[in-house]
Amino acid sequence: MFYGARLPSLSVGSQDAYSSAHEPNKENQVVKDGSIAINGITLIDGTDSAPFENTSILIEDGKFARIEQSPAVPFEAATVIDGRGQYAMPGLLDANVHLLDGLSLTNNFGGIEYLARYEGRLKELCEEAAQLSLKYGTTTVFDTGDPYRPIIGARDAINKGEVVGSRIYAAGAIIGQSGPFTRDFMVDGRTRATKRFADRLDSLWEWPGLGGELLLMDIEDVADRVQRHVETDIDIAKVFVTDHLVSSFQNSTAYLQFSHRVLERIFSIVQGAGLKLVTHTSSIESLDTVIDLGADVMVHHNVSQQVRMPDSLIEKVAAFKGWGAPQPVTNRFQHGLEAIGHGWARYGGGAHRDNLERMIQAGANLCLATDACESSIDRMADFTPEELTDRPWDLGRGSVYWLTAMVETGFTPAQALRGGTRDVAIAYGVDDKLGTVESGKIADIILLDADPLADVANVAKLNKVIKDGVVIDTAALPDNPVATVDGKFD
Amino acid sequence: MFYGARLPSLSVGSQDAYSSAHEPNKENQVVKDGSIAINGITLIDGTDSAPFENTSILIEDGKFARIEQSPAVPFEAATVIDGRGQYAMPGLLDANVHLLDGLSLTNNFGGIEYLARYEGRLKELCEEAAQLSLKYGTTTVFDTGDPYRPIIGARDAINKGEVVGSRIYAAGAIIGQSGPFTRDFMVDGRTRATKRFADRLDSLWEWPGLGGELLLMDIEDVADRVQRHVETDIDIAKVFVTDHLVSSFQNSTAYLQFSHRVLERIFSIVQGAGLKLVTHTSSIESLDTVIDLGADVMVHHNVSQQVRMPDSLIEKVAAFKGWGAPQPVTNRFQHGLEAIGHGWARYGGGAHRDNLERMIQAGANLCLATDACESSIDRMADFTPEELTDRPWDLGRGSVYWLTAMVETGFTPAQALRGGTRDVAIAYGVDDKLGTVESGKIADIILLDADPLADVANVAKLNKVIKDGVVIDTAALPDNPVATVDGKFD
Amino acid sequence: MFYGARLPSLSVGSQDAYSSAHEPNKENQVVKDGSIAINGITLIDGTDSAPFENTSILIEDGKFARIEQSPAVPFEAATVIDGRGQYAMPGLLDANVHLLDGLSLTNNFGGIEYLARYEGRLKELCEEAAQLSLKYGTTTVFDTGDPYRPIIGARDAINKGEVVGSRIYAAGAIIGQSGPFTRDFMVDGRTRATKRFADRLDSLWEWPGLGGELLLMDIEDVADRVQRHVETDIDIAKVFVTDHLVSSFQNSTAYLQFSHRVLERIFSIVQGAGLKLVTHTSSIESLDTVIDLGADVMVHHNVSQQVRMPDSLIEKVAAFKGWGAPQPVTNRFQHGLEAIGHGWARYGGGAHRDNLERMIQAGANLCLATDACESSIDRMADFTPEELTDRPWDLGRGSVYWLTAMVETGFTPAQALRGGTRDVAIAYGVDDKLGTVESGKIADIILLDADPLADVANVAKLNKVIKDGVVIDTAALPDNPVATVDGKFD
Amino acid sequence: MFYGARLPSLSVGSQDAYSSAHEPNKENQVVKDGSIAINGITLIDGTDSAPFENTSILIEDGKFARIEQSPAVPFEAATVIDGRGQYAMPGLLDANVHLLDGLSLTNNFGGIEYLARYEGRLKELCEEAAQLSLKYGTTTVFDTGDPYRPIIGARDAINKGEVVGSRIYAAGAIIGQSGPFTRDFMVDGRTRATKRFADRLDSLWEWPGLGGELLLMDIEDVADRVQRHVETDIDIAKVFVTDHLVSSFQNSTAYLQFSHRVLERIFSIVQGAGLKLVTHTSSIESLDTVIDLGADVMVHHNVSQQVRMPDSLIEKVAAFKGWGAPQPVTNRFQHGLEAIGHGWARYGGGAHRDNLERMIQAGANLCLATDACESSIDRMADFTPEELTDRPWDLGRGSVYWLTAMVETGFTPAQALRGGTRDVAIAYGVDDKLGTVESGKIADIILLDADPLADVANVAKLNKVIKDGVVIDTAALPDNPVATVDGKFD
Repeated sequence: MFYGARLPSLSVGSQDAYSSAHEPNKENQVVKDGSIAINGITLIDGTDSAPFENTSILIEDGKFARIEQSPAVPFEAATVIDGRGQYAMPGLLDANVHLLDGLSLTNNFGGIEYLARYEGRLKELCEEAAQLSLKYGTTTVFDTGDPYRPIIGARDAINKGEVVGSRIYAAGAIIGQSGPFTRDFMVDGRTRATKRFADRLDSLWEWPGLGGELLLMDIEDVADRVQRHVETDIDIAKVFVTDHLVSSFQNSTAYLQFSHRVLERIFSIVQGAGLKLVTHTSSIESLDTVIDLGADVMVHHNVSQQVRMPDSLIEKVAAFKGWGAPQPVTNRFQHGLEAIGHGWARYGGGAHRDNLERMIQAGANLCLATDACESSIDRMADFTPEELTDRPWDLGRGSVYWLTAMVETGFTPAQALRGGTRDVAIAYGVDDKLGTVESGKIADIILLDADPLADVANVAKLNKVIKDGVVIDTAALPDNPVATVDGKFD
Repeated sequence: MFYGARLPSLSVGSQDAYSSAHEPNKENQVVKDGSIAINGITLIDGTDSAPFENTSILIEDGKFARIEQSPAVPFEAATVIDGRGQYAMPGLLDANVHLLDGLSLTNNFGGIEYLARYEGRLKELCEEAAQLSLKYGTTTVFDTGDPYRPIIGARDAINKGEVVGSRIYAAGAIIGQSGPFTRDFMVDGRTRATKRFADRLDSLWEWPGLGGELLLMDIEDVADRVQRHVETDIDIAKVFVTDHLVSSFQNSTAYLQFSHRVLERIFSIVQGAGLKLVTHTSSIESLDTVIDLGADVMVHHNVSQQVRMPDSLIEKVAAFKGWGAPQPVTNRFQHGLEAIGHGWARYGGGAHRDNLERMIQAGANLCLATDACESSIDRMADFTPEELTDRPWDLGRGSVYWLTAMVETGFTPAQALRGGTRDVAIAYGVDDKLGTVESGKIADIILLDADPLADVANVAKLNKVIKDGVVIDTAALPDNPVATVDGKFD
Repeated sequence: MFYGARLPSLSVGSQDAYSSAHEPNKENQVVKDGSIAINGITLIDGTDSAPFENTSILIEDGKFARIEQSPAVPFEAATVIDGRGQYAMPGLLDANVHLLDGLSLTNNFGGIEYLARYEGRLKELCEEAAQLSLKYGTTTVFDTGDPYRPIIGARDAINKGEVVGSRIYAAGAIIGQSGPFTRDFMVDGRTRATKRFADRLDSLWEWPGLGGELLLMDIEDVADRVQRHVETDIDIAKVFVTDHLVSSFQNSTAYLQFSHRVLERIFSIVQGAGLKLVTHTSSIESLDTVIDLGADVMVHHNVSQQVRMPDSLIEKVAAFKGWGAPQPVTNRFQHGLEAIGHGWARYGGGAHRDNLERMIQAGANLCLATDACESSIDRMADFTPEELTDRPWDLGRGSVYWLTAMVETGFTPAQALRGGTRDVAIAYGVDDKLGTVESGKIADIILLDADPLADVANVAKLNKVIKDGVVIDTAALPDNPVATVDGKFD
Repeated sequence: MFYGARLPSLSVGSQDAYSSAHEPNKENQVVKDGSIAINGITLIDGTDSAPFENTSILIEDGKFARIEQSPAVPFEAATVIDGRGQYAMPGLLDANVHLLDGLSLTNNFGGIEYLARYEGRLKELCEEAAQLSLKYGTTTVFDTGDPYRPIIGARDAINKGEVVGSRIYAAGAIIGQSGPFTRDFMVDGRTRATKRFADRLDSLWEWPGLGGELLLMDIEDVADRVQRHVETDIDIAKVFVTDHLVSSFQNSTAYLQFSHRVLERIFSIVQGAGLKLVTHTSSIESLDTVIDLGADVMVHHNVSQQVRMPDSLIEKVAAFKGWGAPQPVTNRFQHGLEAIGHGWARYGGGAHRDNLERMIQAGANLCLATDACESSIDRMADFTPEELTDRPWDLGRGSVYWLTAMVETGFTPAQALRGGTRDVAIAYGVDDKLGTVESGKIADIILLDADPLADVANVAKLNKVIKDGVVIDTAALPDNPVATVDGKFD
């Protein structure tokens, strides 16, 4: 097994390390600037291993330097954390977010207001969203669709350390998704806004020409556009296999956007460029297709417009090496919606839940994905209590709701925790550096005040968030609030 | 060549048959009840042959019994028509009509008004529409999509001779088209009508379960539905390869409705049942697909959301044995629309015309199709002069506009006339009995006061319409007016 | 007291009339054709009197001929009804109905469907509605607004005895109300229907030119139109003092339609022509105005857009000789709506109920009015249980809900019963012939199986409905169902 | 005559003043700091006087100090302007502007976009708009309706000299007008925006509680609100006598907002507080009413929903001492709109123009008013050429179109110029200091390169704009562009 190979790196020291903590073996330890030692913690390292009690972790240069169970002496470092009574686990990874407010961009949800207010500050919004995500323990997000310029700008600012925030892997525009003033978002948005404004935003969103016109183009022209796209500095690429909102909420159907041969070509270009390919599907047939084509990550693949997937398809999913990134909801959220007859109940309940339950039972690859985004303070005030309770699309907090919901749907706590850490890294092929607490990997780790294996909701009991080997001042986030502060008066 | 073989059936008699017309060779002719003789006419028989001048045609038992150029003596019959100075040609066939008012069923066009007013009389509407069609010389129509019960009812009533009207070949519901109160027609129609009414009409339209839910079903379930459909007494079957109005007018895109393998299955079932398969496409890629799959008739296949088809696709169309049923518009119609910036201008102009011109130049199979329907008198009053001039969707008259428009787009008059007669029959595999004036075929023939080869618009100069060997009293049509009479007051 | 004068007409006979019933004093009674005798009933005669037990009523020639408490012998007649154990009271009168479906004519409620389906049958709809009303015991309705031709047609057909139904007093069009395809009903209706249809219906509704254009006219032109109106054969006239739906549901405001001097002129013409004037108000200021101007009947005058009326206005209402026709709702209806947050809850609750309670306490003139109309069977199926329970706008049944609601709001049962009988007749000046059970008056009377003074809801326990001295076969109503039968299929 | 008294102040000097200009009589003149001398100009002083040629004007301390025709020597000053060949006239006054973009706040015109983008900068927008107005020669504007805080803020900033701009007299909120997210502007705006945002803006607009709830209140409560309003530091007050957009564009009617007695009370409070009262009317009857009540300024009083005003009303207008502030349009604008069937053509044409022509002929008091506002650069790009040509609602430039349109409608050039200067000052009671070029008045004056009496369009040939005795650097305006600069990208 792949993960078995990791175990030797965890040394087992003497049982009385703490008792000798007052006598550190100083000649052996050089305390590096910025180093962090976490001593005496229970480590859930994100693998299949059982928890390691009384474990010490040394972080140096942003990476895990040493991990040792019951070391002879506690680790020394520039910062020493007494982890006794706490639990450590890898920072969460979210396989599917959209840092800008995709929700408000849909019809009747304040989209024009949002775009007009924040035009020119979209990069700042992405950063603020990445901070909200980090604040709640998600150290890495995969943004599978947002306009190229602001999301890449935010990614780079965070990577360079100019801005604090969750690590972003970005897809830029989605192949075959049009801008906010189109059928994909605000169907009649152009009847309410100026043309220049709408054109500006649509072209920003679709850059470099990946919008709906692809559906009408000759296959060679589509290939040219996708080739141009993968040659930019995006990290991943996403394809709309079925349409966006045109059908899902309003019409309860699912159109296909591309023919089989065009999809083959897109897959070939994207994966040929070494990028992981993410799919958006919303029906039985579209899911079947992307499995045949070899998708890497399939977001909300349990969604089928409330049609129960045949068992044969469930088995096909389970046998597939690609990863599903399903969107379960907690019972509390679902029941709240159903009690008031809310339209959203259709999303996480009924056949969608049934599909997911069977995928879990069948042993399918499933990793954490929330589709979360950051709404403005004005927008948030519109939500009812039912909409807000365990809202799966809350950045950061949504990750924890995902864990809870997956356990309610059939995962063990251990499966859920791996699904939210190691498995996302594997799905995206970054498990050589992220997703587990292992020597040599990037030091993204969260410390909890309660045992997440006892109750995955304990992941919300955050004591510390460490990303890239730095303790984050989560209380200070977001440090440049834009959407989360009151609108100005006059 | 197939059609070369037909020539011998046209006998050449003496040059002075008319001079001896006063001395018929009575001993050789038994005048059958209901027989019709047309003497001395110029016959354009719907084949590649040049016109036959001074020709006599004998119709008996609803069929062409004898056709002879310059016979020794004029033919005798129960009814004798002096055809001198006139031109005869086969009755027109229209490869694509929808006898009910599909136009009014689209958003904002009076759809609820239409359905509420005529619910319970839809069969009568179909019959009235078939009469309008016949009145203007179209003796056969292929209704490629209308609710099963009224259209089959009208078809049977006409076939049994209970009602006069164009011969109808009917597809019933379209595979993958939803009812009037859905995204396919009146997107928000349900916000304006009662649920019971909407449900009733939708289920009528979609029977036997061919609506949009097919897009969400497992391939086996789709197959079951289509199988059930072909086992009814429909004559042809139609598939929505791309979506209906969701995208075309409002959004200028084209979604695919079915995956490639589902389409293959549908084609297999329909064609396996011996039915011709008609496709609705609206993009380059969807057209390419249905050619690969072997469609029989491709309606408005020149429509590509104003994207110019690559030459390679035009060549593929030209090499294909299936038939295109394009929708050209006359210059007069197009220029009128463009002058007022009318949205419809997008339909017949630009790339759509360019596509069609190249198809004609490349020698593609192209036959007459109008997509015509019958609107109510109230609805018709809403049209502006620009909308009404050469309106291609006028039942009956639209056939003549098609001929004119095709000549303007590159057809010779002879090609156009064949396209409107013989070629439709070939496309649908009924050329053994319809489409040309040949001995033994069904006697559908129209007599004109001017030469249609000189100007195809002369087809409008109808002198007589004969269908099934009976002279139609066109002035009396429609004989049970429903939609074409004034609404009642109070 | 005005009504004291009536008492002597009620003779008191021997206490043992029934015991001698087998020996009728035949020499004294000539049994007229069609006469009806009701013997031994408890009579609530619609006045301030206490109930008269063991009373006999003789109906001849459509009128009450004799009314006698404990007569020596039971009355003889062509039809003899043993009323023992039953209760008799005058047939109900409803001061405000609209027999056509005004509700469906408002936005999003199926208005186009209704009009298109029933155009040409509106008179029949009025008759059917009058039958529904009669079926539940309301023998007279005041239709305060419906298109002239159908409502007058129905009125006359009923008056002539051609059709059974509640007696109709009709206002025809409302002064200052526009047709169904205007802001007063379906604000954007014209975007969904043909122009000819909309024009036809609007002109029918507004005839003779009483629509919204009055708001823009010179005072003399307004006067001409109103004069023309009162010279037709309408029975009453109604004025829209405030706007119709433009503001009430959607905008929660109330615009004035006419200036003070124009209103004065309208009042002068209407009342000068001997017609009672009915007002539509929806605000404090508009109610204040119509009191000053001397309105006869003020429908839903307790409605003030949920603004609490000042006590001074309540006192002004109480001191006014004109009659209010308020629309209370039952607690059950109101609580049902509130529980689901229904918009209608705003109509009968809050300040509107508070206003009405204070009017009752202050002793204002208040009579029965329901604003009821008849919806189609398709439309009715759209209602939720909360909307249907005690729905005040149900024709016929709504009258009983009114009685219950008024008792819940502060009326005594006796006040409620008088409000639904005698007081409506007084309000409209027809108490010389309608509204009470008195000798010489028209014989409209209902027989109940339980005491309405014990519980006004017992008015629903109808045993017999007699109108114009004829026992109505209520089970057979409506006898020409139009809106209450299923839509036709195909 | 009132204005005759002014003439003596204009001294007549020697004819050769210019010839001796090189020898100024220095001992008699003390040159004040900031003083301006304009020599040799043709002065149209804004009164009934004929133009004064070769006139010199001395401006000191922001006021006109000396005005002399053909003075012996040219005037000396800190700044000396050689006015030969030029024409001087008072700065224009506009009796009706709304500096914020009322147009965009109406439905479908980008209102949400505008408010969301500029919330927090509305005062800056007002200032920018005042600069646009000043840039084109309008030195004083009467803002008859805009939210109190931004408009009063801008007024004060300009008055204090902190910001350059047209002098503003401000009404603040309009009595009886609701905020942007109501029926008065964006009827369904709340379906597209967040509640907090909408509430914030509505309350800003309606402060101090002058919105539509006044229509529902008791007269005493209305009086309290209006009293509170006039006690703030507003300069003028405006009343919505008829409704705003609810009816005008969409429904072509005009509702009354207040009863006669409530209007009387409002007039009494406003005029009793010494404020001029401005009315918004849109019908015959509402205009008649405000004349009876004694309005001071009646904006667009020629608008009557295209109903021709009776001659009796025109005569009443002419006999009235109050001032009309009509909105004529140029022939060019009107013809452009009519050619494309534009809805705006209804505004300035037909009966509205006819009404105005008759008012002019009858000698009514009429002064300049444009209803102009400032739209964003994005919004402006939406206009078609027809909408932009002589657009009467352009701030600043609209004043000149008004002059041209009034001449086309019947004014003499002299009447038009007085209507745009002196008469506005009289209408608002500020003619003691503004509106004419007279000694002692505020030095608002514009210098033109061509004779405005020859062609009033020459007012656009601005050479200099002087306000408060200061030459304005018009090229630099607006100096803090907000709405007139490109939107930000990303």
